[in-house]
Amino acid sequence: MSNDPLVVFTPSGKRGRFPAGTPVLTAARQLGVDLDSVCGGRGICSKCQITPSYGEFSKHGVTVADDALSEWNSVEQRYDDKRGLKKGRRLGCQAQIMGDVVIDVPEESQVHKQVVRKRAEAREIIMNPSIRMYYVEVQEPDMHEPSGDLERLAFALKDQWGLEGVKADLNILHTMQPALRKGQWKVTVAVHHGNATQPAKVMHIWPGYYEGKIYGLAVDLGSTTIAAHLCDLDSGEVVASSGIMNPQIRFGEDLMSRVSYSMMNKDGAAEMTRAVREGMNTLFDQIAGEAGIDKGLIVDAVFVCNPVMHHLFLGVDPFELGQAPFALATSSSLNLTAAELDLKIHPSARVYILPCIAGHVGADAAAVALSEAPDKSEDLVLVVDVGTNAEILLGNKEKVLACSSPTGPAFEGAQISSGQRAAPGAIERVEIDPVTKAPRFKVIGSDLWSDDDGFAEAIAGSGITGICGSGIIEMVAEMRMQGIVDGPGLIGSPDQTGTDRCFLDGRTYSYMVWDGSAEAGPTITVTNRDIREIQMAKAALYSGARLLMDKFGVDKVDRVVLAGAFGAHISPKHAMVLGMIPDAPLDKVTSAGNAAGTGARIALLNTDARAEIEQTVQRIHKIETAIEPRFQEHFVNASNIPNAVEPFPILATVVTLPDVNFNTGGGDNTDGGRRRRRRG
Amino acid sequence: MSNDPLVVFTPSGKRGRFPAGTPVLTAARQLGVDLDSVCGGRGICSKCQITPSYGEFSKHGVTVADDALSEWNSVEQRYDDKRGLKKGRRLGCQAQIMGDVVIDVPEESQVHKQVVRKRAEAREIIMNPSIRMYYVEVQEPDMHEPSGDLERLAFALKDQWGLEGVKADLNILHTMQPALRKGQWKVTVAVHHGNATQPAKVMHIWPGYYEGKIYGLAVDLGSTTIAAHLCDLDSGEVVASSGIMNPQIRFGEDLMSRVSYSMMNKDGAAEMTRAVREGMNTLFDQIAGEAGIDKGLIVDAVFVCNPVMHHLFLGVDPFELGQAPFALATSSSLNLTAAELDLKIHPSARVYILPCIAGHVGADAAAVALSEAPDKSEDLVLVVDVGTNAEILLGNKEKVLACSSPTGPAFEGAQISSGQRAAPGAIERVEIDPVTKAPRFKVIGSDLWSDDDGFAEAIAGSGITGICGSGIIEMVAEMRMQGIVDGPGLIGSPDQTGTDRCFLDGRTYSYMVWDGSAEAGPTITVTNRDIREIQMAKAALYSGARLLMDKFGVDKVDRVVLAGAFGAHISPKHAMVLGMIPDAPLDKVTSAGNAAGTGARIALLNTDARAEIEQTVQRIHKIETAIEPRFQEHFVNASNIPNAVEPFPILATVVTLPDVNFNTGGGDNTDGGRRRRRRG
Repeated sequence: MSNDPLVVFTPSGKRGRFPAGTPVLTAARQLGVDLDSVCGGRGICSKCQITPSYGEFSKHGVTVADDALSEWNSVEQRYDDKRGLKKGRRLGCQAQIMGDVVIDVPEESQVHKQVVRKRAEAREIIMNPSIRMYYVEVQEPDMHEPSGDLERLAFALKDQWGLEGVKADLNILHTMQPALRKGQWKVTVAVHHGNATQPAKVMHIWPGYYEGKIYGLAVDLGSTTIAAHLCDLDSGEVVASSGIMNPQIRFGEDLMSRVSYSMMNKDGAAEMTRAVREGMNTLFDQIAGEAGIDKGLIVDAVFVCNPVMHHLFLGVDPFELGQAPFALATSSSLNLTAAELDLKIHPSARVYILPCIAGHVGADAAAVALSEAPDKSEDLVLVVDVGTNAEILLGNKEKVLACSSPTGPAFEGAQISSGQRAAPGAIERVEIDPVTKAPRFKVIGSDLWSDDDGFAEAIAGSGITGICGSGIIEMVAEMRMQGIVDGPGLIGSPDQTGTDRCFLDGRTYSYMVWDGSAEAGPTITVTNRDIREIQMAKAALYSGARLLMDKFGVDKVDRVVLAGAFGAHISPKHAMVLGMIPDAPLDKVTSAGNAAGTGARIALLNTDARAEIEQTVQRIHKIETAIEPRFQEHFVNASNIPNAVEPFPILATVVTLPDVNFNTGGGDNTDGGRRRRRRG
Repeated sequence: MSNDPLVVFTPSGKRGRFPAGTPVLTAARQLGVDLDSVCGGRGICSKCQITPSYGEFSKHGVTVADDALSEWNSVEQRYDDKRGLKKGRRLGCQAQIMGDVVIDVPEESQVHKQVVRKRAEAREIIMNPSIRMYYVEVQEPDMHEPSGDLERLAFALKDQWGLEGVKADLNILHTMQPALRKGQWKVTVAVHHGNATQPAKVMHIWPGYYEGKIYGLAVDLGSTTIAAHLCDLDSGEVVASSGIMNPQIRFGEDLMSRVSYSMMNKDGAAEMTRAVREGMNTLFDQIAGEAGIDKGLIVDAVFVCNPVMHHLFLGVDPFELGQAPFALATSSSLNLTAAELDLKIHPSARVYILPCIAGHVGADAAAVALSEAPDKSEDLVLVVDVGTNAEILLGNKEKVLACSSPTGPAFEGAQISSGQRAAPGAIERVEIDPVTKAPRFKVIGSDLWSDDDGFAEAIAGSGITGICGSGIIEMVAEMRMQGIVDGPGLIGSPDQTGTDRCFLDGRTYSYMVWDGSAEAGPTITVTNRDIREIQMAKAALYSGARLLMDKFGVDKVDRVVLAGAFGAHISPKHAMVLGMIPDAPLDKVTSAGNAAGTGARIALLNTDARAEIEQTVQRIHKIETAIEPRFQEHFVNASNIPNAVEPFPILATVVTLPDVNFNTGGGDNTDGGRRRRRRG
């Protein structure tokens, strides 16, 4: 035995001795080295490519001779002629170990490979999808030993892949017999590995070796938009991303108005269920079209959403979510099939819906927790998913708290007089001159500031149409910084502010941002009512975060992560001036992008992550803001800009806010009494 | 402890001591005594009724005082007032053990009660259905400890019933929240206990205590008819039985013609699948209507059928079953849902299809094996399920062999000149006078013989319309016994037979049974071609049985069981004269009725029986008649009446067959060359 050649695999470092002539793939399997193969070592799939290294390896104590592996064979030659093998590569199932050798397994040849992600700080995704493909050779039927074709297929999976007790979806029975015969008893099957409620099953069958791919969808079902990533289930790569407006918007902009719709209209909930599922199918058509793939190859889908969307998508009346005690029908994760949800992808595609955390903290928040992993953080992190409803997580590896807070749609540009969705023409960045009090801004579609040369030409196509969510945040913060609006949220008069841009507009003042009348475009102003809307939205968000800090027993957080598509565009400084987020070093406020969508993608590509988040949500402590008296107090304080009582010492080192008060005795402007409970 | 009262349960004999005041139900549960309860001891369901016995019980060493149980309480009084409690009965959950006592658990209070069956020799059915009802009290939601309603329901099932990890069908999510609130957090649920491919799940929910019943269907899906029993899943009782013609008949009378239809017509298989499923739904409407129940309460269904029907029902093209090697798509049992098969019963009703034995020996044969249990027989039993295709089982507890044989539709009256289905007006019993050679007969619808007084009046409604399957068997056997037909199957001339009832009819002779012309009814004759059809059918059946005997290494069997609706009407003597079944004592030839249907019913009512038959079919050795050279030889010999070479010594002690031969040299009448291969 000790004379047998030694093989050392990198990067795993696993090593062992094997008789001369052992294929590299066989050695890898025996050592538990992660080396992929779909065809089971038959020289068909080329997934088991490896790179032998030659020469002296003192680190491993091995000298590799030129003839350490068997010669390049005809199977490798055929594959190279047909598809080209990278220089230095061999097929692991063909190359035999003849002498001591060091074998590198490149990332793409690993089953559990790491998915390359653009964002540097993002957690890595290790491939471990719930559905994989296997090539098998099936015994032919024999009249003397009658058995079903399916039973022989299952035997082949057990015999050739060690997969025990695999059953089949009913649709497999409809296609299996012709496929087996067309492939001359060699077939490729897609096998779902099963879970707590679904046994392992063959989902699809192709005659012979199937060279194509199978796909999965990671879907973030929001109240306003539905966004999906189509992923290759082998590489993990996103092959297309797409989004549509949630068609339920016609039943109500925010969630509470949809819950009301279902209460006021018989079959209202069913109507909304139909709408969202139809929307889903439209989106899936769109994304499959973009990627140029057959929808029938989408075999897995993961969904994240808030509780109301969760219920409506499942066909559950959200009635109970509209009133205390906000009881979810179910908080567990769900394993379903596409057919059960009327989704027109692969007929038996699997569907996984992440668990909900509580009646107001949904599977989307769970997905954010999966993506941003506050439960694994050394320092104390506040994760805020900014949307019509904000989901807030606070914690570290010791403990994680969660709540939601009804911010309303102001951050999406709704209920703001010149507000609009983020689209070309919308003001997204703002600076107000300390002396002239005049704003300069950028609009979506151009990188130029409004006072740069060529700005007018650059935006000629879109015009200047309104202010989007991130724009309004910067606008209000700049107005506060330059003394146009005071702490309680009142816009000053021309006298008080020293600019004619402030003008009497009914009983309060408004601020003129852009007079479009010369170009027949809209005139863009910020009214005092707009300020109120932003105050309420940011106060809801802040008071939720502050409540969690109380419960955690802290006065400050180490870092803040802004999640949500919108969170990506928020300027940390302006958000802090507004008092939307707690005081923190600006470089400790980062954006995670669509973290909910990322969480969905992680769960799609790695089934272990599903088990992980199911465990994690059990440990997250949920805070119901509606029954916490201090929430109201925090809310009232947070209505001030940045806050009536809390100091922002770190902010103070960066920005000095003018100490102005425009109230001349006409009333209380904190507006705490106008508080509404909104969900959505 | 030793001073605690002693309680002895009968009939189990289980005994133990319990502190005074322990409810009888609690004691029963702790001792593992089979005492039913749906409400969990809350005095609602009355399922736990018991009968205390008083006085001296030397057998148990117990003296039971009058106050051995607590006094009759208000719950019992209320129940008695409302529904009446049988004399001497107590509610096990209310009556407390106060002194030594002997408690009898009546059959109807046992969960695993035995179902009363009409047929004396039938195997008993012990209730153990896959779906049971449970009453639970669920914790109300709490904002401080958010959890889903379903999770609290699952906790109640675990806490109050010891059911671990029960999930829910998606439709439960649609109805659960209103049900919980309407029932004030008390509900009754139907729980499917799960199996290899389906986890335990709540299937239905009712507010409060549900007093109604749930049902299951046992369905025998035959080529010609579909028959169903609707069973109460608590008592096991058949509450309605019904049948319809298989609507696939329009695509072909026998199975091979349906396989051909699918080969010749694009979408032919799909058309037949649709037809049989629609037929099923018609039948289920009919049977639910008969029983006066809501179809939505049918939560379980078991199907048995031959392989071609099996595939067509599942939506699998039966193409492969039409040609060697007759490969089944799957031979395993299947656990599906009603929705997957387009069956309109409870939306998530479970469906179980018994395993198939081989390409020609289907789930119907497996059901016969379950019902007649040849694998448990001490003596060697031949079980023949007589139909368009005969399934034959031969075995004892050592070994069981199986085959099928294509008898064709002659036994159902088809392809017989005066043949008809078993219906009023059909001749079903025949005796031919040894002297006059005139027949007397009975027709379906009357108990009188045709030469009895009042016969004409008794049958006036139906008339005499033809001969059914069992009638033609008796007719041909009687013709052979009275020398009208010879061993090779030739009808003699008037001279040879001594009766003018034999008349030249083309090139051969026919036998006049009934001249209906006087009453403008049909004239009923037996032609020599009719004899040929019967010869081929019975030869197919016998040669299959004989082949199994060869393989078993025996020349005779201890007993014969005739299964199938038709088998119930066959006269053993005439069947043996015909040489349809092997020689055996007449009292050892019995009828099992619709054994396939009974097997389906056993599997419906007892999940252990499902596991049992899945094991049993693995051990049944399948013989493919098509590839056995001796089958042809047996077939040719068996074309003779009763047989060209085999002696029937036991038959000879009962009947002496005349040694006649009507062949005057015009050719060979064994007709072995006309053999067809038919399936169906």
